[in-house]
Formats: sequence, C-alpha cells, structure tokens
Amino acid sequence: MTDTSPETDAERVVVLAHEKFPERAKTATGVLKYADYDVVAVLDRDRAGTVTTDHRADLPEVPIVSSMADAPEADTLLIGISPIGGAFDDSWRPDVRTAIERGCDVVAGLHYFLSEDEEFATLAAEHDVALRDVRKPKEDLTVAGGRSADIDAEVVLTVGTDCSVGKMTVALELVEAARERGVDAGFVPTGQTGIMIAGWGNPIDRVVSDFTAGAVEEMLLEVGDDYDVLFVEGQGSIVHPAYSAVTCGILHGSMPDSMVLCHAAGREAIHGYESFSLPEISEYVDLYEGLAAPVHEGSVVAGALNTSGIDDDDAARAAVEAYADELGQPATDVVRFDADAVLDSILGAE
Amino acid sequence: MTDTSPETDAERVVVLAHEKFPERAKTATGVLKYADYDVVAVLDRDRAGTVTTDHRADLPEVPIVSSMADAPEADTLLIGISPIGGAFDDSWRPDVRTAIERGCDVVAGLHYFLSEDEEFATLAAEHDVALRDVRKPKEDLTVAGGRSADIDAEVVLTVGTDCSVGKMTVALELVEAARERGVDAGFVPTGQTGIMIAGWGNPIDRVVSDFTAGAVEEMLLEVGDDYDVLFVEGQGSIVHPAYSAVTCGILHGSMPDSMVLCHAAGREAIHGYESFSLPEISEYVDLYEGLAAPVHEGSVVAGALNTSGIDDDDAARAAVEAYADELGQPATDVVRFDADAVLDSILGAE
Repeated sequence: MTDTSPETDAERVVVLAHEKFPERAKTATGVLKYADYDVVAVLDRDRAGTVTTDHRADLPEVPIVSSMADAPEADTLLIGISPIGGAFDDSWRPDVRTAIERGCDVVAGLHYFLSEDEEFATLAAEHDVALRDVRKPKEDLTVAGGRSADIDAEVVLTVGTDCSVGKMTVALELVEAARERGVDAGFVPTGQTGIMIAGWGNPIDRVVSDFTAGAVEEMLLEVGDDYDVLFVEGQGSIVHPAYSAVTCGILHGSMPDSMVLCHAAGREAIHGYESFSLPEISEYVDLYEGLAAPVHEGSVVAGALNTSGIDDDDAARAAVEAYADELGQPATDVVRFDADAVLDSILGAE
Repeated sequence: MTDTSPETDAERVVVLAHEKFPERAKTATGVLKYADYDVVAVLDRDRAGTVTTDHRADLPEVPIVSSMADAPEADTLLIGISPIGGAFDDSWRPDVRTAIERGCDVVAGLHYFLSEDEEFATLAAEHDVALRDVRKPKEDLTVAGGRSADIDAEVVLTVGTDCSVGKMTVALELVEAARERGVDAGFVPTGQTGIMIAGWGNPIDRVVSDFTAGAVEEMLLEVGDDYDVLFVEGQGSIVHPAYSAVTCGILHGSMPDSMVLCHAAGREAIHGYESFSLPEISEYVDLYEGLAAPVHEGSVVAGALNTSGIDDDDAARAAVEAYADELGQPATDVVRFDADAVLDSILGAE
C-alpha cells in the first residue's frame, strides 16, 4: 500500500508555485524560509531563469525553473500553492507525473487528494513513492484525555485577534530566535502550511470536531519530551464567528503555559466578516486567560504585531509600542524587528 | 439511490432497546417522551409482555415486544440504544432485516453506518426504504457566514457546566412548557439523540471542526423563520478539556439571545476527567457571556439544575434555591419541578 501519512523524510525538495511566486505562494515562501530540509528548485513557468532572491530578499537563493523535467536531483515534490477551493490545477499534472517517475514523493495540502487520483495512485505504486495529502487527517484520532500538561516541554501558544494575523509565522520565528539562543525549541503545526514546513502534524481544522483538542494533544504527547520549549501554531480567534471552535480546541488541547497574542496593525473588524468589530486588546487577554484557566493556567506574556501594512519603520515601531502599551506586555513585529524582549518574556514565563 | 438523509417523515415508530430498557436506553426514553411522532412498540426481549409504564411512570404507555416480527404496523424502526463504541450488535440483525422487508425506514445513531452494511443496503434498495445514519454529517456543510442573528426567532441556548448535565432534556422540556403557554417554540438538535427525537438535524460533534459553527448556522437558517422562539441543544462545556471546541462552535454558530446554564447538583469535577475541578458558577456566567458578546450579545437568564441524584424533594428544592442564588437568576429542575419562573425569565429576556 502506498504510504499516505503526512510525515516526511524529505531532504531535497522541489516546490511547485507556477505563476504565483512569491506573493501568492504562501506555502512555498514559508517552506523556503522555515523548513529544515533543503529546497533545491522552485517551479514557476513565468519566472524560470531567475532566482528566488530576485523576487524577495529574505529568502534563501534557489533557482526557479519551468518544469520538473528541468529540476535538479530531488527526493520530494511539494505543491507550494493552493488555488481558491483547494483544487488541483491540471496544468501541474506533467510535473507531478515526472516527479513520481523520477522517484520523488509528492506532498500536497489541497482539498483534492492526490492519493485518490487514479493516475497518480497507480504511478506512485509502480515507482514505490509516497503521496502525502496533509489535509487528510489520520484515521486513528480520538478525544483528548486532558494530558497535554504532562509533557516535559513548556508550551507556548500563538493566539490571535483574528485569522491571517501571522500566528504561524510568529511561532516559526520564535522557534528560530530561541534556537539561536541555544534553547531546544520545537514547532507544533496545526494547519496545512505549517504541516508542510514541519513535515509532520495533524490538520486541526479538518478533524472531526469532537477530536479537535485530541488531535492537538496527540501531537504534544508525540514530541513533548523531545524539546524544552514547544511553540504551538494557533488558528483563528476565540471570537471568530466561524472558526472559534478550532481556536478553543487548540487552546484546551495544548494547555499552554504562556501565550503570545498576535494582531495585525490597523485591523478593526474580523477579516471577511466586516460587521463584527474586534474587541479591545485587554478583552482578548481576559478571554484567552479566563478560558484557559479552568483547564490549565496560562498567561498572555507577549504580543506580536504584524506591521506589514505600514511602510515606514518608525511608524511601525510606534505601532508596536502602542500595542505593547495596550497589552501591558512586551511586543514586537517578529519579522520586521528582533524578538529579544518578547523572547525574554516568554522564556522568563516558563 | 437509497435516501440516507437524517430527515424523517416517521409517523408510527418501533424503538429497539433490547436488554436495556429503560435505564440504559437514553435515546429510546427520549424519543418516547419528546418526539412528535407516535411510538407504537418498544423491542426488548427481556421485558416482552410488559408495557413501558411498568418501568417508568413518566413515559407514554407503549407495549414492549420481543422482536420486529411481533410489532404492530409501523413505518420506521429506530435503534434506541447505543453500545459503548457505537457498534452494531449482530443480535439486532433479524429485527432490522424484518423491518426493511416490512417496508420500514431504519434510523440509527451508531458509529457503524447501516447504510454501509452490504446486506441492509441491498435489502433497503429492493424494498425502497431509507437507512438514516444520523451520525453521518451532510456532505455540503461549510464555514459559518455569521448570519444566525438574521433569523426572526429568538434563540435560547442551553449551556452547561459539564457534559451529561441535561442540556438536551432542558431544551426539550422548555419547548414543551413554552408550547403549553401558546408560544410557537421549536427545538434545534445538535447531537444524535436530539436528532433522532427531532427527526432532522446536524450531528455537530461529528462535523469537520472548521464547519462546527457553520453546521449550527445551517440549521438555524433552515427553521429560524418558522418559529418565534428556538431552543438550541447545547453540548459539552466551554471549559471541558476534550469537548470545548464543539461547545464554542455552537455558542458562536447559534448566536443566542439568552442562555440557560445547566448543572448537575453535587458535580464538582469534570465527569471522566476528575482532576479538573469545575469553576465557580459565576465564572461560567462570565465565560459564556464574555465569549458570546463579541459575536452576539447574549445573557445567562436562568439556571437548570439536574437533581436526579437527590432522593428527597425538599433537599432537591433547597439545592435548586442555592443554585439560583449562586447564579443570581431563577432556576429550577425542569424534570422534577415546573419551569414557570425559568420560562418567564427566558421569554421576558427576548
């Protein structure tokens, strides 16, 4: 039977991002920036012949080629873009076919499961490679046992005022910053992009609702004794009209010792649900801490502000300072500025 | 194709409860007490020849027979018990077979799906009857749109301090009490027993976690203009280590105008998770109201105390009074005492 688990042993990875690199290829850029494995090429037929750093200075320099046939030796092809609706674009079919024929595993986070595509499944079996659909939850998930606090690692959860404020990026940047200080830090992914970067994990937004906390707990129990500090990727917001269930399940399933409240500068209403205003920052703190406490005491110890919408560095710094004041805790933009004060607060809170 | 939706047009129902009636047959007794359709027989091979009221005085009098072959004319067989794990007990197979051959639909809330049982599926197609597995969510559910507050009906949600404190029963009793006053009240089920009683609904604990609120909203939008007051069945507890995600999704998906806080007298720790103490009643009120407010303002306006563990009526009444004091709102045990003061508070809060 073809291996379809999300756990990968990828070392040399080609990332498909046709016509969308880098602005509309969040998974591709995330993988380039944060994954432990090497990206050896990006596929983008519109940008073939350039390198990644021609388009974004903060990425490692990797050649961009037009098809899998032009890519250097690799062990994995990763689909680094996701069209609206999560469909598979048939123009990618030759690249996936070539990858399988070259003996590569294929990793995807689409709604369309490659492992259920007849051509790919047959070809993968012939060539003995894995098709990993990271949106497909494991079959053996179950309800939480209330055991996440039993692990050795301290747990830090990134929580948010809304969706799309940078909770995954903040967790990944904090892992890197902690490792630079010599802290044995690990990352626990909860969404498809995080899973593709980490090479393992449960897609919490896709599991059966009764198993939401359980699917988080399962990950913490798996890696919780291997690290001193675990940064868990949060999802959604506890007051989101559609996604709060996932947020709440992650909160109680991970039992964080501390939380980092992530916010986007200038955001005043729920993204895509503009009739719902965001509450005050202090109210978020009360809600996250109040809801956490009966299961496991945890405090919001720092803030992370996404200032990508502010051009001027001084204005961004002022926004961060105002956010820290509102929060009553150190804050930063982990991408734009350094994470020192925030990391001090997190590691001091252990 | 065989009809497999949970929506039923049952009128004359036989309820299977072999060896478990009435104490271990929660679905069977719930259906007897609250369903709009008629139960014409209960199947229990250990109690054949008796009637339901021999075993519990508060149920309608219905004959108990040993098999489907002995049951009177009916249009539906409903599986009214659920073994641990939700398996199908093969000793029930002759009854299901006979029911299908007699032209009955079969409704079940098991983990084991009757519609995927080869023998039953084939037989059901031959006899043109429906196999309704109410634990199987609809295929077309999606994320919430934040639209539940747009419906005409006032929405009342039963929330809880824990699992198994009576949230479904309280909602059903309040529907009956409201109807007795001439209020056009409806019931919105969220779990398998509620769905079997109501004959429609989404099993919220089984949907994809991202769709938790959306699956509740879908129900409210479906029936929200047909009633003046809707009583929504809550699930779990907002501080439950395993099930809080479902609770939170129902809270934000239903956008209640008012809430009834359900509690079991004497309960001090989460059932099955005894190392987790229940917080103070006032803290529950703060958490439910605080979490609801950013999406839709709603207040806890009454309490429902399950005093089934207290033998003495005076002691039960004292427990209810103490609970009302803690809550600062009228309270009752809706099964043991009348619901007047609580209903006044709910209807007055509209």
